[in-house]
Amino acid sequence: MIKVGIVGATGYAGQQLVWLLQKHSSTEIVFLCSHSYENTLYNDVYKNLNGFIDNVCINIQEAEYKLDCINILFLALPHGKSFDITKKALSKGVKVIDLGADFRINSKNIYEQWYKVEHTCPELLEESIYGLTELNRNDIKKASLIANPGCYPTASILALAPLLKSNIIDEQSIIIDAKSGTSGAGRSASIGNLFTECNDSIKAYSVAEHRHTPEIEQELGNICGNKITLTFTPHLVPMNRGILSVCYSKLSCKKSQEELYEIYRNFYKDEFFVKITDTMPETRWVKGSNLCHIGIRLDKRTGRVIVASCIDNLMKGAAGQAVQNMNLMFNLDEKTGLDFPAMMP
Amino acid sequence: MIKVGIVGATGYAGQQLVWLLQKHSSTEIVFLCSHSYENTLYNDVYKNLNGFIDNVCINIQEAEYKLDCINILFLALPHGKSFDITKKALSKGVKVIDLGADFRINSKNIYEQWYKVEHTCPELLEESIYGLTELNRNDIKKASLIANPGCYPTASILALAPLLKSNIIDEQSIIIDAKSGTSGAGRSASIGNLFTECNDSIKAYSVAEHRHTPEIEQELGNICGNKITLTFTPHLVPMNRGILSVCYSKLSCKKSQEELYEIYRNFYKDEFFVKITDTMPETRWVKGSNLCHIGIRLDKRTGRVIVASCIDNLMKGAAGQAVQNMNLMFNLDEKTGLDFPAMMP
Amino acid sequence: MIKVGIVGATGYAGQQLVWLLQKHSSTEIVFLCSHSYENTLYNDVYKNLNGFIDNVCINIQEAEYKLDCINILFLALPHGKSFDITKKALSKGVKVIDLGADFRINSKNIYEQWYKVEHTCPELLEESIYGLTELNRNDIKKASLIANPGCYPTASILALAPLLKSNIIDEQSIIIDAKSGTSGAGRSASIGNLFTECNDSIKAYSVAEHRHTPEIEQELGNICGNKITLTFTPHLVPMNRGILSVCYSKLSCKKSQEELYEIYRNFYKDEFFVKITDTMPETRWVKGSNLCHIGIRLDKRTGRVIVASCIDNLMKGAAGQAVQNMNLMFNLDEKTGLDFPAMMP
Amino acid sequence: MIKVGIVGATGYAGQQLVWLLQKHSSTEIVFLCSHSYENTLYNDVYKNLNGFIDNVCINIQEAEYKLDCINILFLALPHGKSFDITKKALSKGVKVIDLGADFRINSKNIYEQWYKVEHTCPELLEESIYGLTELNRNDIKKASLIANPGCYPTASILALAPLLKSNIIDEQSIIIDAKSGTSGAGRSASIGNLFTECNDSIKAYSVAEHRHTPEIEQELGNICGNKITLTFTPHLVPMNRGILSVCYSKLSCKKSQEELYEIYRNFYKDEFFVKITDTMPETRWVKGSNLCHIGIRLDKRTGRVIVASCIDNLMKGAAGQAVQNMNLMFNLDEKTGLDFPAMMP
Repeated sequence: MIKVGIVGATGYAGQQLVWLLQKHSSTEIVFLCSHSYENTLYNDVYKNLNGFIDNVCINIQEAEYKLDCINILFLALPHGKSFDITKKALSKGVKVIDLGADFRINSKNIYEQWYKVEHTCPELLEESIYGLTELNRNDIKKASLIANPGCYPTASILALAPLLKSNIIDEQSIIIDAKSGTSGAGRSASIGNLFTECNDSIKAYSVAEHRHTPEIEQELGNICGNKITLTFTPHLVPMNRGILSVCYSKLSCKKSQEELYEIYRNFYKDEFFVKITDTMPETRWVKGSNLCHIGIRLDKRTGRVIVASCIDNLMKGAAGQAVQNMNLMFNLDEKTGLDFPAMMP
Repeated sequence: MIKVGIVGATGYAGQQLVWLLQKHSSTEIVFLCSHSYENTLYNDVYKNLNGFIDNVCINIQEAEYKLDCINILFLALPHGKSFDITKKALSKGVKVIDLGADFRINSKNIYEQWYKVEHTCPELLEESIYGLTELNRNDIKKASLIANPGCYPTASILALAPLLKSNIIDEQSIIIDAKSGTSGAGRSASIGNLFTECNDSIKAYSVAEHRHTPEIEQELGNICGNKITLTFTPHLVPMNRGILSVCYSKLSCKKSQEELYEIYRNFYKDEFFVKITDTMPETRWVKGSNLCHIGIRLDKRTGRVIVASCIDNLMKGAAGQAVQNMNLMFNLDEKTGLDFPAMMP
Repeated sequence: MIKVGIVGATGYAGQQLVWLLQKHSSTEIVFLCSHSYENTLYNDVYKNLNGFIDNVCINIQEAEYKLDCINILFLALPHGKSFDITKKALSKGVKVIDLGADFRINSKNIYEQWYKVEHTCPELLEESIYGLTELNRNDIKKASLIANPGCYPTASILALAPLLKSNIIDEQSIIIDAKSGTSGAGRSASIGNLFTECNDSIKAYSVAEHRHTPEIEQELGNICGNKITLTFTPHLVPMNRGILSVCYSKLSCKKSQEELYEIYRNFYKDEFFVKITDTMPETRWVKGSNLCHIGIRLDKRTGRVIVASCIDNLMKGAAGQAVQNMNLMFNLDEKTGLDFPAMMP
Repeated sequence: MIKVGIVGATGYAGQQLVWLLQKHSSTEIVFLCSHSYENTLYNDVYKNLNGFIDNVCINIQEAEYKLDCINILFLALPHGKSFDITKKALSKGVKVIDLGADFRINSKNIYEQWYKVEHTCPELLEESIYGLTELNRNDIKKASLIANPGCYPTASILALAPLLKSNIIDEQSIIIDAKSGTSGAGRSASIGNLFTECNDSIKAYSVAEHRHTPEIEQELGNICGNKITLTFTPHLVPMNRGILSVCYSKLSCKKSQEELYEIYRNFYKDEFFVKITDTMPETRWVKGSNLCHIGIRLDKRTGRVIVASCIDNLMKGAAGQAVQNMNLMFNLDEKTGLDFPAMMP
């Protein structure tokens, strides 16, 4: 059994991890660490886990003390909080999957510019592997430190990778208009996230300045070999889970919609978790699962291609992909513990 | 492997069954029958199952023809539609679990009075077993025909059984005020169930005349040995899934809240799927799972006891309990394929 | 023009008042006072009022200073916070409508027992008039201090008054099962009221101990002349606004459903804001309006009568009724500024 | 008093018209015509209007017969259904405001190409005035036939007009990513619009082929004097009302964000219903009102300008703007009956 510790276990991504790992056939949860709920029974916070999880939340000091007892550490913390514990874990030979942003951006400068905190262990940036499983599978298998992708980047990069790899779009024409459920905003008490303030309304936020922008640009740039600058607009939608990323770009050569579908079906032909769908995707079809649905439309009148992808932000956009990566790192079938569809309705 | 056929597979309860059975370790889906989607790829109707289910929906004639190839038949049909196929299946030695109402009411007269259709095989009423697993486990194990309980009755009977069994309430004082998500209204096109007509609103419906009333009265009567007449008020709540059943009754003897809790904890002490909770339950804690959460409050000022239970109407209230019953009928661990918690948020 | 001050203007009830008064033909808003948003432009907090309200929020000291400039003061504060300012306002001849709980309970003891704070001006309890307009119209006209009713009590008392006045029910048999939208929980940051924690779920809360209980009992007792003890269960429903109060009681004499309707239609025959409806009411039909819809069902099998009433908790349950009362106090047509229906959908 | 008839009165836009006109100080509703609810009391369909509207719905023959009794006819019908009654009304000197699409597209060919029905009175296309009030005010005042704009076009054109008028963007770079509440899908029974199928999910639909595309292109082309071809992607969001239109385009010259704001504030400086907001708009701030909120962001890194506008699809996007236009046509203050803000929450 893989022995697991989770730090940041009472946030929504942390809880999704606990949910997945408690039913994973090859893992054993050694500890759950939570700053806000130290000494609290985990299933008092998440009563859905009554009968499934008996742990009491520990604090970060206790977690560090128990690093010797685990094989892998999952971090689900706000940015800037993962540096110390990551260093300690790696030094003890514990593999680390960080669901936060601290090791996603290769450049210390760019990280600090967007995240407004100092990066105190830039030496790990070279070592860390960006955990978008479908694109970096081989590196992930050998990695000790995974920077698990953000939710918007996962949806957006999966949607755009085939176009960039095929070299058929104007690389500077990309606009990403993405929509997220409110669990993406986290579980902190705030007036803006009250039911009464979110229900029956939609808004764009962090327009032209969201922190997932450099992450998307970096990875898309790696795919095509050129520096990418794009426009990214996230939205908050009155639903619990799900991301819909609608990606616009200008074709640089003539392609029919059928040819575009062919490119996508071919690109993802061996991928279990990515489905290319004839109809445009809806978040409900992937909610609660690790799947990504992608649909493509050619706008003949303008020469643009419109690609829409859907994921569950807490699953393929966070905890699900983290488990997928863990499976690879421990030579398990990648689908272990993730092989179930969305529940409808 | 248990070979399974499902009739009424494209309704919400039917789909939940498909969802559960495709990942059940001991079942094989032989056919999916749907009146509305004959010859349609099942995962074109429920795109969440893209990659998980490849069946094409067949019609009822084909289903009857294939009865020889299955061990168990699940019916998820409107009332009055299960009679013929049930007879045919039983005559071929196929076990039947009917998720509809046709075999729940022991009396042909009472059935016809509430459901306004003729019961054409009353001879099966004696044979059929009411499939509230926790209360009828032994009979279920030996049954050929299970009348799977309604969603409201499941929640309400589980909430009230310990009080009636303990003989501590005025049996004629029961009032059940129950609230359901909209999936309980089914998947037929109707103006009343449009998003715009249900969202941001709540209503009571079928007040003092809902068809689940005689079912609840019959089963509670069986528990206490007396005829029960009660008031039952269902509500429609703007949420997809879940039932909250709040049950009021008058104590007939003095009990503290602690003593009441003791009675409940004892009554359900061996039950995996029923949790007695210190806090009053919320539907989200059981959504998507087969669990039932129950909380109890003594209203000292009035001498009433208030018991609230929560289930997922499509799981413990329909497909989940059907699978639980199937497990028993085939000597499997009752939890097989059902051993997972609600997903939050 | 009636010159108005509002203290607690940035809560949901306060904002509803501002909304109503800014378009009221006979009022002028002199000041808006907010503890949390002192010195903030009101329409920066509630951007819906951009172009309609230009006030900057003032603090309580400034509000007290401006008492000389107003004719009426509205208070929308947490309980225990209205005592001082009420005394000061009344001493200056300013009429007061308190939307909070501080003057609703006639007995200092009962208030302190349920609200756990000391009542520091019990001498005002005799003077204060309970502002359920339809029942206390004459006293309201002459009052200087109105205790504006709670949202649950408004819905519940309007539903039960005709039965108690007619003396046709067992007065000790009353059970009220009420459901509220989340705006009833206020606008404070709290994890429990986050969208992700409320959406797609329902729960009962404060079962058998909600503070609106003694208020309902007091007023119903006044109607029938006997002390009433009842069971009251509130619920939180995933919707912004609205209360559905379902009231159960035992008939003490034989009445048909038609006779019950006759009693209700007669009782409310001159009331513009109360509609007796053939169908059972839904909160959406009154959302955003000052109306109350009431439907009645006789449960012949049990001899119980079930009355359901719907109001908007922020309108008839708070600010709307406050304006209705103000209209009476200043000899205006009671409907002034309130004469509009719910907006659908 | 202006005497009014409404055809298509029981759809959501029709009902919003009824709502507005019943409280409008200068109108009298002469008839309500509904195909689906002939001979039904209007307030039995929309119970919110119980006490406000007493009309019984009439059929189209009766409506035609009563054309002599009205000054203005509102049509809220599916496309292709407005031709005959419009001709008849105009021939009798009755002014017409068509909330549908039949007179919006100047070219018979383009209309037929996108709407797939024959246009049987192309002679009226020249006469009809596109009723986007803020842009065509003078023509509207003199018009007999108003083609009331679609909801998406209203939001999108108001967002883009200042940029095109100022000639500061690449006119072929426009992408509109718009999001709508479900009332935009109408009130017909359909599985796709059930609560259970829409709740907690988002989707794009009619990608690159929505019928509002040529309408937006036509009007934007009129503003800048050049043919515009753009990409338009609508989405369905789980909320009742509201449109958020996010419009992307490439600046053709250097402008700061402050300069862009200056252009917008100047363009709309005399408009009551259009507010330029420092923060990006949210649909809740305009829900239920006739207002449009617009926010602007410069994406310096890419040279794109991102303009987001919010309206209520049934108000400024349909019935509200229709009343605004009627006010102009009858020399009333444009704000009559529309001068109220959104209700929050």
